[in-house]
Amino acid sequence: MSATVLAAVMPAPLAAVEIREFREPDLPRGSAMLRTSFAEVCGTDVHLWHGRLSGVPYPIIPGHVTTGVLDRVRGEVTDSAGRELREGDRAAFFDVHRTCGRCLACTVDRTPTRCPSRRVYGITDSAADGLFGGWAQKVYLEPGVIIARLPDAVSFEAFIGGGCGLQTAVHIIERSRLALGDTVVVQGAGAVGLSAAALARVSGAGLVIVIGAPASRLELARKMGADEVVDLDRTTAGERLTLVRDRTRGRGADVVIEAAGSPRAFEEGLELVRDGGACVIAGHYTNAGDSTVNAHRHINRKHLDIRGCWGSEVRHFLAALAALERHGGEVPWQLIGSTPYALAEINDALAAAEAMTVTKALVDPWS
Amino acid sequence: MSATVLAAVMPAPLAAVEIREFREPDLPRGSAMLRTSFAEVCGTDVHLWHGRLSGVPYPIIPGHVTTGVLDRVRGEVTDSAGRELREGDRAAFFDVHRTCGRCLACTVDRTPTRCPSRRVYGITDSAADGLFGGWAQKVYLEPGVIIARLPDAVSFEAFIGGGCGLQTAVHIIERSRLALGDTVVVQGAGAVGLSAAALARVSGAGLVIVIGAPASRLELARKMGADEVVDLDRTTAGERLTLVRDRTRGRGADVVIEAAGSPRAFEEGLELVRDGGACVIAGHYTNAGDSTVNAHRHINRKHLDIRGCWGSEVRHFLAALAALERHGGEVPWQLIGSTPYALAEINDALAAAEAMTVTKALVDPWS
Amino acid sequence: MSATVLAAVMPAPLAAVEIREFREPDLPRGSAMLRTSFAEVCGTDVHLWHGRLSGVPYPIIPGHVTTGVLDRVRGEVTDSAGRELREGDRAAFFDVHRTCGRCLACTVDRTPTRCPSRRVYGITDSAADGLFGGWAQKVYLEPGVIIARLPDAVSFEAFIGGGCGLQTAVHIIERSRLALGDTVVVQGAGAVGLSAAALARVSGAGLVIVIGAPASRLELARKMGADEVVDLDRTTAGERLTLVRDRTRGRGADVVIEAAGSPRAFEEGLELVRDGGACVIAGHYTNAGDSTVNAHRHINRKHLDIRGCWGSEVRHFLAALAALERHGGEVPWQLIGSTPYALAEINDALAAAEAMTVTKALVDPWS
Amino acid sequence: MSATVLAAVMPAPLAAVEIREFREPDLPRGSAMLRTSFAEVCGTDVHLWHGRLSGVPYPIIPGHVTTGVLDRVRGEVTDSAGRELREGDRAAFFDVHRTCGRCLACTVDRTPTRCPSRRVYGITDSAADGLFGGWAQKVYLEPGVIIARLPDAVSFEAFIGGGCGLQTAVHIIERSRLALGDTVVVQGAGAVGLSAAALARVSGAGLVIVIGAPASRLELARKMGADEVVDLDRTTAGERLTLVRDRTRGRGADVVIEAAGSPRAFEEGLELVRDGGACVIAGHYTNAGDSTVNAHRHINRKHLDIRGCWGSEVRHFLAALAALERHGGEVPWQLIGSTPYALAEINDALAAAEAMTVTKALVDPWS
Repeated sequence: MSATVLAAVMPAPLAAVEIREFREPDLPRGSAMLRTSFAEVCGTDVHLWHGRLSGVPYPIIPGHVTTGVLDRVRGEVTDSAGRELREGDRAAFFDVHRTCGRCLACTVDRTPTRCPSRRVYGITDSAADGLFGGWAQKVYLEPGVIIARLPDAVSFEAFIGGGCGLQTAVHIIERSRLALGDTVVVQGAGAVGLSAAALARVSGAGLVIVIGAPASRLELARKMGADEVVDLDRTTAGERLTLVRDRTRGRGADVVIEAAGSPRAFEEGLELVRDGGACVIAGHYTNAGDSTVNAHRHINRKHLDIRGCWGSEVRHFLAALAALERHGGEVPWQLIGSTPYALAEINDALAAAEAMTVTKALVDPWS
Repeated sequence: MSATVLAAVMPAPLAAVEIREFREPDLPRGSAMLRTSFAEVCGTDVHLWHGRLSGVPYPIIPGHVTTGVLDRVRGEVTDSAGRELREGDRAAFFDVHRTCGRCLACTVDRTPTRCPSRRVYGITDSAADGLFGGWAQKVYLEPGVIIARLPDAVSFEAFIGGGCGLQTAVHIIERSRLALGDTVVVQGAGAVGLSAAALARVSGAGLVIVIGAPASRLELARKMGADEVVDLDRTTAGERLTLVRDRTRGRGADVVIEAAGSPRAFEEGLELVRDGGACVIAGHYTNAGDSTVNAHRHINRKHLDIRGCWGSEVRHFLAALAALERHGGEVPWQLIGSTPYALAEINDALAAAEAMTVTKALVDPWS
Repeated sequence: MSATVLAAVMPAPLAAVEIREFREPDLPRGSAMLRTSFAEVCGTDVHLWHGRLSGVPYPIIPGHVTTGVLDRVRGEVTDSAGRELREGDRAAFFDVHRTCGRCLACTVDRTPTRCPSRRVYGITDSAADGLFGGWAQKVYLEPGVIIARLPDAVSFEAFIGGGCGLQTAVHIIERSRLALGDTVVVQGAGAVGLSAAALARVSGAGLVIVIGAPASRLELARKMGADEVVDLDRTTAGERLTLVRDRTRGRGADVVIEAAGSPRAFEEGLELVRDGGACVIAGHYTNAGDSTVNAHRHINRKHLDIRGCWGSEVRHFLAALAALERHGGEVPWQLIGSTPYALAEINDALAAAEAMTVTKALVDPWS
Repeated sequence: MSATVLAAVMPAPLAAVEIREFREPDLPRGSAMLRTSFAEVCGTDVHLWHGRLSGVPYPIIPGHVTTGVLDRVRGEVTDSAGRELREGDRAAFFDVHRTCGRCLACTVDRTPTRCPSRRVYGITDSAADGLFGGWAQKVYLEPGVIIARLPDAVSFEAFIGGGCGLQTAVHIIERSRLALGDTVVVQGAGAVGLSAAALARVSGAGLVIVIGAPASRLELARKMGADEVVDLDRTTAGERLTLVRDRTRGRGADVVIEAAGSPRAFEEGLELVRDGGACVIAGHYTNAGDSTVNAHRHINRKHLDIRGCWGSEVRHFLAALAALERHGGEVPWQLIGSTPYALAEINDALAAAEAMTVTKALVDPWS
């Protein structure tokens, strides 16, 4: 019986990714195997390859957000609404497969994304433990993983185009407490920024301005819903401040969403936001260096809110699916992903992601 | 007719304050004269003297928060609850005497402390316009000023000891969204920090730690309600971090209140606060220089909230009065103010405030 | 000197409305005259005619939300962003022309719509005091009234179609704290309900269901953005509950917006909403009778939020204008208003509004 | 081998509770046995005996909130802060021992108290499954139960005096969003109301009024922190309204906490609260009948918030422990419980709770 599965394994930081053969596991009750349609190579994977995340148990099978078809289901497996999932269902799953639900982060602070026991597909599980990553022909969905059927209207391409960036963007919009008519500036036109701009638009923002580069991403930003785009490479910070003030009667943006990961973007956002506004900081997944902040001018006198936004929770995953279904007609999420790379081309995919020559590199492990 | 009033006038930044004689004004209907019992010399006045606030129409009569007895009342003058105020009443007033109520800050953003038309006794009115400051034997309360009778249980000394710092502290506590049992670190043991510590205590904080100096202020901090005090001059930042972690099961403070006005304090607060916690920035009334912040480590990964807190609104003034009445028995606000200075000693009072040899210099213009 | 203006005066409850001639007033500095393009006859006016509001100083000129052209401007008159308004500008104004800004409702509670001194065009001013209502060829805009230029993209018809209902709907959406993807049930397909459905749709609701009657209004509800409409007259409460549960995986709506003004609608909303959801009560502008509520089943065990929503504030007025500009292309607000009635036909207009044969009766005082 | 344990078993609704002998279970890794010091007979137990809760798998061992000493610990068992628990530790545990963490209530709505899989000691587990209730000499703490060491300063008597009522009260205070200086009316002087009054007091309430009966409970309410008590049996609703208005400058209470469980109390609370205030409904654990509410007068025009409050979460349990430690010196929680009943007297205890002749009947299964 076809008991083996190919997967791409990252043996260690900066070492070439290799294709290895894995045995399909026996399934305990309540678990399932997903036959991968698409996985993604996102910024996190580049960080993993650079060895910038701590505590990663290399070798690993990368790939956290993934979609495909339920290949085998053992016992009753249900989605969050209690509906049974069946073999053949098009599906996706929430990549955080364990949080303890008992620690102070989970219970008292209600910040489960800061649970010390948090485990994430493609990041925190060793390849020695099995098929816990999306860069593989099949992914093992252990009991308890939150699985959802893909709505009929949501293609695999749209789901993976949204990918982890869309889930982060749902969390960002929640943290932003956007009000009807707000002017929103999004810094960064990568996968997170593009989805944040789209969601701000469909959540009632009065004006959405995306600052980023290169021109091709800005063009996509417009398609995603940005009213106005500003090329980071062709404008000065002063010009961008003038533009934002000009669009806001001199006041500045109600909400600035930082999805750029640059210390300069954080600094600039503090200038672009209005008094009493909010900056959501979501692009600094790793340490990109320090910023210079003036507590008087930027925060205290501005009566400003600055809100960090880390990871996503189940509700952001489910809301991302709902947003794809609801708004997929107007927001072309499927355009975010590249032509898929085969497993054999995975090092090229990683290189492309590192060089940012594609917005998001996709992986099709069966091509 | 005792038609003249003495007042201290600051002619220009860094120029000696002078005592001048003013004519008592005719009162329009709805206005009143307050016979000053105490005014304060607070940090704002030192900033005024250093010329660090923009748009100040020198010469001015400084002194924003002030208390005394209603000397004359013309027509019906009522408090916020509609109760009539009478000559002879012990009273205080909200020092912000005008906000427009029409601009976007007042209406849309609900941040009236950022209204461009905001006018504040002791700061934004020229001495040429009359008795608009507390360093005077009498203060003119123009129609529309929010006046409140001092509750019987609140002495002039307690009110002025709380002074503007207490009103700011009420706003800080509101911005902190303190939950029952939270660990609160207050940075700074000046008038704002002392009142913030006291209010955190009576608002259900589980542990209140004050970091400051010198030892005499820390002793006062304990009397105000701090559970623990840390001498800034005798500890390193590393020791303080160890202490806060030790008191919080390794997590850090739920809430950090910055009332120190130092760029280093802001930086340190970002270390002291727990993941998912909140830092309220309230001490940077003027520009004390830049801070170095790491957007990844301090904000994004911490899922942190940083909230600037600027000025006070009417509700903070009224809540300050209520807090003095309710908690005056346990919190010795009257200990914050110094032995009062006479008008003739006003330059000494200013020097003492500048040198920080007193926590707050009081002024008794009739002594 | 065209010194006279025609206005419709309601002499007393249930008395026929009469056309009277008024002298145009001399304008104090900071005031203006608006040449009325359209006023509306809304439910409030029917209540006024029935004498159901207390403290109304009959005779009055009804008509609170109104739009037209600035006919005369005396001195500098600016909008909330500080931009000068000029004669000839197409304009609208916020109908609440006075709140005290001093009372506890205005300052402490931040509920200015409950200020005892609140005055509203068309409701709280006697015709003896002048042209303070929209059922007139011109309206006197006293100093301090919040006036806004109509954006170029917003027609008079669209503005008045939105009218007071749209401003209320902005407030409702704010109170609802709608999250991306929420299922929203709107009870009532009148001017408020239609705009609430439209705003819920453009604010990111995942599904918008409108319950109302008659069929023509439901058809309009679809055009405004409802995904699904339910005819109140052709369904039972049980059928509606089944339908809402069916659309929400058995849970009920995240948000129910009551804009029907019926005690039965309030009761039904408590059934339709999910555990932990929110009901916003906005349709009970007058007393339509009591409802029967089970505190255990409807509120306590449901862990429900019920939120009353009264009147609008300046920010709702301004956000309504912004929404008209932003979303006017997709939301046909101009369809809400009827063919305009002339002043001479005003009793017909009132009768039509009372009989609810039109969604909203418009008044064109120059036709 | 002392392998047997006595427990009180409720065989069925309205049947006499019997003492039965249970075998001590073998402990799986991560579990523990608690040697009961005190359990409580609370209102829930009376409801259980009346058969008013659905889905209860009689026979059961009642007793949800319980405290004692860890008798046996198998493997590593830690508290929420990761500290190891040891045999001999004085301890308490969170009575909700399972929520799924996967359903929409747990994940999307963040209302885990509405999780359909929720299981609670003393209520949802059959005696056939083992020692899952506090009316027993020992309680089995299965793996995953949230256990906490009792702080040294917290006596068993204080913990059980607070009991489930205190945990509910923590949740109530969270839902109330109490602001410094607020006037709080607590309806009900039972275990929930008494703790709610105490917590309101230590959380910064400006005035705490408790309405209840009989006089002995009101006396205790004063000791717990109420500023004023009102005897329900000796006043009319009109008199109570007059009193509350009198204490609040005519406005009404900022917050009303309903902990009485009476339909009349809910109705009265809607009168007692001020415009723009909040009513928290927490006393209707079971269906006590319908209330009559006027949506116009009570909710819409009042711009009111009504918030149901159901059950407690881990953070409320932990905050209750912290409150006992912090405020136990000033708040005499130990006075709430009665002289303990022995297991043999358990039917007497139940009768006393039913008759409300004691505020809370305690059980000491070793006496």
